[in-house]
Amino acid sequence: MGSLSLEMDFEPLPMTPRSLAMTPRSLARRRLFPNGENKKQKVAPPGAGPRKNLELEVMEPGLKNDGPSLDTILVNYLDTLKQRVNYHLGYPVNICYDHYATLAPLLQFHLNNCGDPFLQNTVDFHSKDFEVAVLDWFAQLWEIEKDQYWGYVTNGGTEGNLHGILLGRELLPDGILYASKDSHYSVFKAARMYRMDSETINTSVNGEMDYSDLRAKLLQNKDKPAIINVTIGTTFKGAIDDVDVILETLKDCGYSQDRFYIHCDAALCGLMTPFINNMISFKKPIGSVTISGHKFLGCPMPCGVQITRKSYINNLSTNVEYIASVDATISGSRNGLTPIFLWYSLSAKGQIGLQKDVKRCLENAKYLKDRLQKEGISVMLNELSIIVVLERPRDHEFVRRWQLSCVKDMAHVIVMPGITREMLDNFISELVQQRKQ
Amino acid sequence: MGSLSLEMDFEPLPMTPRSLAMTPRSLARRRLFPNGENKKQKVAPPGAGPRKNLELEVMEPGLKNDGPSLDTILVNYLDTLKQRVNYHLGYPVNICYDHYATLAPLLQFHLNNCGDPFLQNTVDFHSKDFEVAVLDWFAQLWEIEKDQYWGYVTNGGTEGNLHGILLGRELLPDGILYASKDSHYSVFKAARMYRMDSETINTSVNGEMDYSDLRAKLLQNKDKPAIINVTIGTTFKGAIDDVDVILETLKDCGYSQDRFYIHCDAALCGLMTPFINNMISFKKPIGSVTISGHKFLGCPMPCGVQITRKSYINNLSTNVEYIASVDATISGSRNGLTPIFLWYSLSAKGQIGLQKDVKRCLENAKYLKDRLQKEGISVMLNELSIIVVLERPRDHEFVRRWQLSCVKDMAHVIVMPGITREMLDNFISELVQQRKQ
Repeated sequence: MGSLSLEMDFEPLPMTPRSLAMTPRSLARRRLFPNGENKKQKVAPPGAGPRKNLELEVMEPGLKNDGPSLDTILVNYLDTLKQRVNYHLGYPVNICYDHYATLAPLLQFHLNNCGDPFLQNTVDFHSKDFEVAVLDWFAQLWEIEKDQYWGYVTNGGTEGNLHGILLGRELLPDGILYASKDSHYSVFKAARMYRMDSETINTSVNGEMDYSDLRAKLLQNKDKPAIINVTIGTTFKGAIDDVDVILETLKDCGYSQDRFYIHCDAALCGLMTPFINNMISFKKPIGSVTISGHKFLGCPMPCGVQITRKSYINNLSTNVEYIASVDATISGSRNGLTPIFLWYSLSAKGQIGLQKDVKRCLENAKYLKDRLQKEGISVMLNELSIIVVLERPRDHEFVRRWQLSCVKDMAHVIVMPGITREMLDNFISELVQQRKQ
Repeated sequence: MGSLSLEMDFEPLPMTPRSLAMTPRSLARRRLFPNGENKKQKVAPPGAGPRKNLELEVMEPGLKNDGPSLDTILVNYLDTLKQRVNYHLGYPVNICYDHYATLAPLLQFHLNNCGDPFLQNTVDFHSKDFEVAVLDWFAQLWEIEKDQYWGYVTNGGTEGNLHGILLGRELLPDGILYASKDSHYSVFKAARMYRMDSETINTSVNGEMDYSDLRAKLLQNKDKPAIINVTIGTTFKGAIDDVDVILETLKDCGYSQDRFYIHCDAALCGLMTPFINNMISFKKPIGSVTISGHKFLGCPMPCGVQITRKSYINNLSTNVEYIASVDATISGSRNGLTPIFLWYSLSAKGQIGLQKDVKRCLENAKYLKDRLQKEGISVMLNELSIIVVLERPRDHEFVRRWQLSCVKDMAHVIVMPGITREMLDNFISELVQQRKQ
């Protein structure tokens, strides 16, 4: 096999009917109906449109039902997931949540942290105490005083990006959004939603922002303020844009502090870099930082943390008497379970536990990279990254089996805390085997 | 006590330090630290800013901890919630979820329905089969063919509104947003986020859109397309804007079907009206319908369902190879648990069960209204509504105890499926007692 081109090309491997048949939905369906009850299953031909014929539907109690019961469907679904845990290598999520049994009783209620976490509601079914505890912890991690910050637990990294970029736009209404082409796609989605002008900045081969391109574009648009999305760990290559270089570039180009806003998308790495260096710090003139809570830390459902400066938030607040709260969030009604899940995990693990996780993941990523290199497989690993980029395996079933994420001719493995050396060894040996065929 | 003015005035009752001390956060804290461990608790004086001194924080394992353990905090929190269930009258959520024990094992995994529900991901930890089953059920309820609709399970009603209004704006880029002043606040938030011009339409005393004001404003802005938010059940008074009258008004004012877009915010009532009349139907020229899943049906965390026409969605889709999906959602990474919770509840209850719930809630609302009227308390109940609006009780502790939602001089009780006659009787007798003091 040839060497890995880290520049993207535009020839993704074709999807065959066979590979489509191995999609997660058909896999799941196979497990849901394991005993030949799968007669109606059809494989969608490529290009036949997105809709597939599904077996699973909402049932009506009292009507005749030839298929499995609700509980059988659930048990089969859970069994499939259990079997697939050891083959989850391509996505930046902690796939298992250790404290689920302890926290399960929360599910008997509806918990809703509607509106501002710092203001009281007139209803008891929320977890804002837990939420503020979590926010305080992150504020300390990112070096901002309790009385200086505002934030909330979001539904995920995208909501954090939507919120941070909206803050920037409200502060600098004619600002241009600058984001590298390796930024998360939600950043460009935000520009479109918010009707903002944007500039896409090139990246170097490792995925990091090309600062000379940023400089050129900042100079071209000097008459307008700059809203910059800084990615602390790109989704595919794990590259970290250097906040300090970006701040220096802004200064060099004549942008004073009242003419720029910096949002840091630290989805995966916001919980890692603080244990390595002080890259993310509100002592620097940054406006907001967001992380995903379900990534490095882990949570059964997507969530995130968004922290900004308290002085910025009044711009967004609208007094809504209905919920007796000033709402400066994107989502209004908010999940009340996730703050408790985050609080519990952070408290059980602690900074010391997280630091250990970071160290082990970095070592395991280095181990994977070295082993793959020894096998003659092209591979790349950024500094301070746990994302090992490798040439895309040709066999679709292998890619699906290991749940790899692929872009063009590349795949990656994200060496998350739950991934063991044993899993990596199994992966390597199967990959080597597969390449011989 | 005087009669209830259903027009709003602008003199909310003042917040006293005592009433602040009864906020849910201080209530919760009291339970969290029940044995005099509450020394540090301070009551924020009115106007002292939003930040309160909280006792709860993230702990660091290994460090000395004089307070209660993680598990003790959780148990106390759960105990408080259990005690407060019978006093939850003011909010449109089904506060208890019957099937939590069955579904709790799902919490051991991270489930993420990233991107489009109809397209496969390259990872197994999702519940898109369940999600599509739920969407199909709602499509049938609102009369649109499987191959004609697109939708997804959202994080709540707000995301549905953000999505529906964005669809309208993308189809009609210079459209003006029309929404009644009793619309949910997320509708006006959307206009601001999306940089859309908007017109606020007056409402009649019962909370319903004032169609003559709509007509006047449509005629004023005839050169621009109209994007109309129709509220099927306003948050405070439960009023239903009449889609048919609005469609007639558009026609009368000379708006052809390619020059308007209708989004229906049916947060609470979208699951009720179909069992009473066919108000919501895609056989009419409407563009999108959203409901909240945690309201009439119930779910441990906020969620919703958004359904639109498949032909509209391509405008929003962006191909993102990273997640091997075309993403036309707002939130990207999406909660994979909520579709399973919705699927289970819908299947366990069925249309027949929902219909029974609707009937019982309407009867109970009528019962509450009649009883209050007999006691000489001013009260209002819209047709087909389960929201009983009454004069705001003067005692803040009473309002907090019953978790009532208040706007100006009004309060309301939302007679949800979980609310029994016994709870209503207790409420009435306490209210009558309190008014004598």
